[in-house]
Amino acid sequence: MSAVTEAPTGPQGNLSAITDEDIFAGHIGGKLSVELTSPLETQRDLSIAYTPGVAQVSRAIAADETLAKRYTWTDRLVVVVSDGTAVLGLGDIGPRASLPVMEGKSALFKKFAGLNSIPIVLDTKDPDEIVETLIRLRPSFGAVNLEDISAPRCFEIERRVIEALDCPVMHDDQHGTAIVVLAALKGATTVQGRSLEPLRVVISGAGAAGVACANILLAAGITDVVVLDSKGIVCSERTDLTDVKTDLAARTNPQGRSGGAAEALEGADVFLGVSAGKIPEDLIASMAPDSIVFALSNPDPEIHPEVARKHAAIVATGRSDFPNQINNVLAFPGVFKGALDAGARRITEGMKLAAANAILSVVADELSVDKIVPSPLDPRVAPAVAEAVAAAAKAEGVVGH
Amino acid sequence: MSAVTEAPTGPQGNLSAITDEDIFAGHIGGKLSVELTSPLETQRDLSIAYTPGVAQVSRAIAADETLAKRYTWTDRLVVVVSDGTAVLGLGDIGPRASLPVMEGKSALFKKFAGLNSIPIVLDTKDPDEIVETLIRLRPSFGAVNLEDISAPRCFEIERRVIEALDCPVMHDDQHGTAIVVLAALKGATTVQGRSLEPLRVVISGAGAAGVACANILLAAGITDVVVLDSKGIVCSERTDLTDVKTDLAARTNPQGRSGGAAEALEGADVFLGVSAGKIPEDLIASMAPDSIVFALSNPDPEIHPEVARKHAAIVATGRSDFPNQINNVLAFPGVFKGALDAGARRITEGMKLAAANAILSVVADELSVDKIVPSPLDPRVAPAVAEAVAAAAKAEGVVGH
Repeated sequence: MSAVTEAPTGPQGNLSAITDEDIFAGHIGGKLSVELTSPLETQRDLSIAYTPGVAQVSRAIAADETLAKRYTWTDRLVVVVSDGTAVLGLGDIGPRASLPVMEGKSALFKKFAGLNSIPIVLDTKDPDEIVETLIRLRPSFGAVNLEDISAPRCFEIERRVIEALDCPVMHDDQHGTAIVVLAALKGATTVQGRSLEPLRVVISGAGAAGVACANILLAAGITDVVVLDSKGIVCSERTDLTDVKTDLAARTNPQGRSGGAAEALEGADVFLGVSAGKIPEDLIASMAPDSIVFALSNPDPEIHPEVARKHAAIVATGRSDFPNQINNVLAFPGVFKGALDAGARRITEGMKLAAANAILSVVADELSVDKIVPSPLDPRVAPAVAEAVAAAAKAEGVVGH
Repeated sequence: MSAVTEAPTGPQGNLSAITDEDIFAGHIGGKLSVELTSPLETQRDLSIAYTPGVAQVSRAIAADETLAKRYTWTDRLVVVVSDGTAVLGLGDIGPRASLPVMEGKSALFKKFAGLNSIPIVLDTKDPDEIVETLIRLRPSFGAVNLEDISAPRCFEIERRVIEALDCPVMHDDQHGTAIVVLAALKGATTVQGRSLEPLRVVISGAGAAGVACANILLAAGITDVVVLDSKGIVCSERTDLTDVKTDLAARTNPQGRSGGAAEALEGADVFLGVSAGKIPEDLIASMAPDSIVFALSNPDPEIHPEVARKHAAIVATGRSDFPNQINNVLAFPGVFKGALDAGARRITEGMKLAAANAILSVVADELSVDKIVPSPLDPRVAPAVAEAVAAAAKAEGVVGH
């Protein structure tokens, strides 16, 4: 392990000043604590919160299970669930090693949305067992944030968990990323005075984030989306595609392009990198004028943002030390808060689109080439997203049980 | 629902002043909150607790899984697990209705032992599924407090969870009760200047608590223990016994008594009620001189303590509004804290006996007929229990992995 974390030398941050020592010291004992909402100091406190008083509340819930939403913490509790198979850029490092990331996620839920959240990491990679376990745990929580589960398993697992549970469920690596990417792309085109629909978009990566980004961009009205995986353009001619990619090929690449990144990027308006791959500078140079580059691989972007900036009009990364940080934290706290505020049974496409618009609305009057989305620390974002998501849930009729 | 909870009119409390309104108001939104252990205010905070810094910690745990104990919250996290089948005196009211009790338990873990604790309630009653679920969740926690699981299922479930997991596991309804009962009985005999071993003890109830109390009293050196279930004395002649009761019959009732409560109690030194049954006053009157009565059924003791006091020298209940409250909260916070402090792989009989002695040690100089155990709110208890339990764990060599 190096003495100093490999944080980059960007223009904004001084992350290189964060040492390994700082990071490990910040993790001793973990990042979460369970606290009491009321004091337990007196015999009277104990008699209300525990025996004999608590029996009254348990009796009431036994008679009417919907009262559990009102009288327990579960209605505002998001479980962050992972099997540790696709953690950050680290891959399949297992459930225990994924825990610091999941604790961080839970901390962000509290910090930005005021929701309680706990990490649940599972010692199984079997989709049947993961779904079954969450069904058994269902009375313990109010919503499920699936996290860092590898593709293509994540698609089946999310679909089945959504079907099985009557509560908000979202795989954040898919939809959190997609929501923020859509917000950022709307921000970029607004700065440029262009409209979204005619853009020619190339997505590098056909995993969780790539597939979800393709879906949300199509839903937003962009028709020319091309997806690249490690073998090249995902297109109908290929015989090596998974079911998910076969489906993707049928819905993307309307010009019938084939080949690799070079063929895809020539003349394209938008490059969206959500893989660990690299993109050479000359391919970015081959894009259309006023091109937009989102190089979101973390911690190492597909192309260094300062290199991309020589050719592209607008550049964003996933990094805090460059302008235009595209981070899921802009989406997930508000999305879950809005869904829970509304009592939504599920998270719909309309709620996701509403979230993207709400993220952008916060900085509508502040947009610039170097500010196409709000800062991840902007406290206005989560409340705005929550309000929009709750309104969309009500409008779509997914509220109530 | 009555306007005022049915709290009794005892000499000590004014619980009758607690209204339903007080109780339900005290439960809105639940009793637990997840908080951050460090602020997340700046980009630097975010870079340490979340990306990119967190990746360093995840990498380190991936390389050495034992580091999860140091760098995540799990090493100090007790999950309170229930299927809602035997909740207080309410019976099988289901997982959702059990939640207020489990939240209360988690709150007590924080209040008295400083441990983090979360309720996990399961929508299954199947022992195989309960054990399997906890195995899958294992990387998420540091210890398991099984709670309010019905007998005889609780015996098998606890045994199998202990076998399957390399961490402290205890069914509190069994062993928490047994530990505090042993402490109280030692306290009572100390006040009376008697020794424990020659006592003739009658236990009413052969469920979770009854079986565990019989076991710990036998382990403490009492030889004449008789257990009653709803059919009478548990004895080898009976043909209707479960496996657990057959085993109990073989290890108790050395005088070969048969019959019911009347036959058992005549001339007995100790009555221990851990069932919902009632005991008539004349049977208490038939006990030996200087008899000891622990009527622990909650909220309605097997015999009213003021009635019992007419015949018995020392009377205890589970209630806060009479002297000598025997409450598990004297045991479980310190037992789990001690086990986790020591890094114990399991909770042994020696650790339980050490816990009982430690509870009593706190009030060694304050003992009286009306104070045979410390108050449940006595802040000295959990640290003393934890220290004794940790020492016992080390002495028994169950520490380390």
